[in-house]
Amino acid sequence: MQIEKFEILAYSEAGFKPRQEKLAVEAHLDISVNGNRKYHALRTPGMDAELTVGWCYCQGMIESGEEVREILTTGEGIINLVTEKKTEFPAGEDLPPIDPSGGIRFAPAFLFDLQKDFFTHQQIFSQTGATHAAGLYDVNGSLLIFAEDVGRHNALDKCVGHLLLKNRLREAAFCLLSSRLSLEMANKAYRARIPVLAGVSAPTSLAVQLAKKQGMTLVGFLRPPRFNLYAGEWRLIKE
Amino acid sequence: MQIEKFEILAYSEAGFKPRQEKLAVEAHLDISVNGNRKYHALRTPGMDAELTVGWCYCQGMIESGEEVREILTTGEGIINLVTEKKTEFPAGEDLPPIDPSGGIRFAPAFLFDLQKDFFTHQQIFSQTGATHAAGLYDVNGSLLIFAEDVGRHNALDKCVGHLLLKNRLREAAFCLLSSRLSLEMANKAYRARIPVLAGVSAPTSLAVQLAKKQGMTLVGFLRPPRFNLYAGEWRLIKE
Repeated sequence: MQIEKFEILAYSEAGFKPRQEKLAVEAHLDISVNGNRKYHALRTPGMDAELTVGWCYCQGMIESGEEVREILTTGEGIINLVTEKKTEFPAGEDLPPIDPSGGIRFAPAFLFDLQKDFFTHQQIFSQTGATHAAGLYDVNGSLLIFAEDVGRHNALDKCVGHLLLKNRLREAAFCLLSSRLSLEMANKAYRARIPVLAGVSAPTSLAVQLAKKQGMTLVGFLRPPRFNLYAGEWRLIKE
Repeated sequence: MQIEKFEILAYSEAGFKPRQEKLAVEAHLDISVNGNRKYHALRTPGMDAELTVGWCYCQGMIESGEEVREILTTGEGIINLVTEKKTEFPAGEDLPPIDPSGGIRFAPAFLFDLQKDFFTHQQIFSQTGATHAAGLYDVNGSLLIFAEDVGRHNALDKCVGHLLLKNRLREAAFCLLSSRLSLEMANKAYRARIPVLAGVSAPTSLAVQLAKKQGMTLVGFLRPPRFNLYAGEWRLIKE
């Protein structure tokens, strides 16, 4: 269940009136890896396996979907990832920068098209106002995976985990976010080797520094017909 | 430094133009308690001692500001809290509900006045669009403390820590947030014994459940002349 109905009192100039309101469901998830408890998430239920795999990948605990042997749900809100090799947490080594000559080049309006599609998928947000969303698109602008979650980190982890389990993460070229672009969000996109990160809202200083250093294209304040380009301008077709 | 200037390319229908943009500074902070590393925060620099004390309090690691013996900054982004008694992490025991007969009663328009004041303090957000804010007010609507941070949890922790160190936390009657009202935010207000939590945005299901159970008044979508009341209606003056 991702949405819960709830009786509230709505206040307006006419006074208080009882009304039924929809709330985004937030629920606990305890993530273990090979039996060791690693993380406690407050998340929107659904895609728990994907969330677990994506979180572990973004933390450097697994390097590919092939390392996933089993994903065990041992109770309500409890999940255990069994991996092929016993990776120590965290992996530590920095990944190399994302290849700048990777061939992804796009016109500014392409981002507006992606965002238009992105907004159509925000089903929980449109009813509750309480969720963030992440969407991963391929180089042609086709949606690979979309997720909503009360936690913005979870939304992106779910998307990354889904594609890892399908062995299709390398197809992800564009990451769209509803949220601000903080270091942690940029870092997840970087670890997932997604060259272009774009969002409706503002980036932070560390996110911009990471994007510059690691060859990512970073776009903030994506609000047609405008956006701000913070890093990776060579991927933009300018005429 | 809380704001950093940065050269960007601004895209509009007229094409790309270089422009100087202000970014919210995000920086690492490692929090230790009695020499043991407990938490890594990505935060807006400033009020680091308050953030540390507030975080420890909201985690149940200290029970009052009087337990704080020393706050040592041992390097850039490294802070160590030395406490009077060696509290084990986490405290564990649930606190009792907030006293419903505590005497705080207010008219709906009172919240609009608080919010009007709140918005005037969002200095970093108005320049960068990348920070959340928390403000604590006393029963008369006087601002006790206000904080902005790239992390919404940090903003509230800073406020709580500041009042703890001044031994004035018990004066906090209203907590205003710029962010969504998730369980973690409601839980911080509850641990700080603040009876009224209100925010511009939506609550989650667990935040509403906590507020109901623990005697808090929870107000979401505070957007004059309207708001939604999710819990604790007896504190509202209705005529």
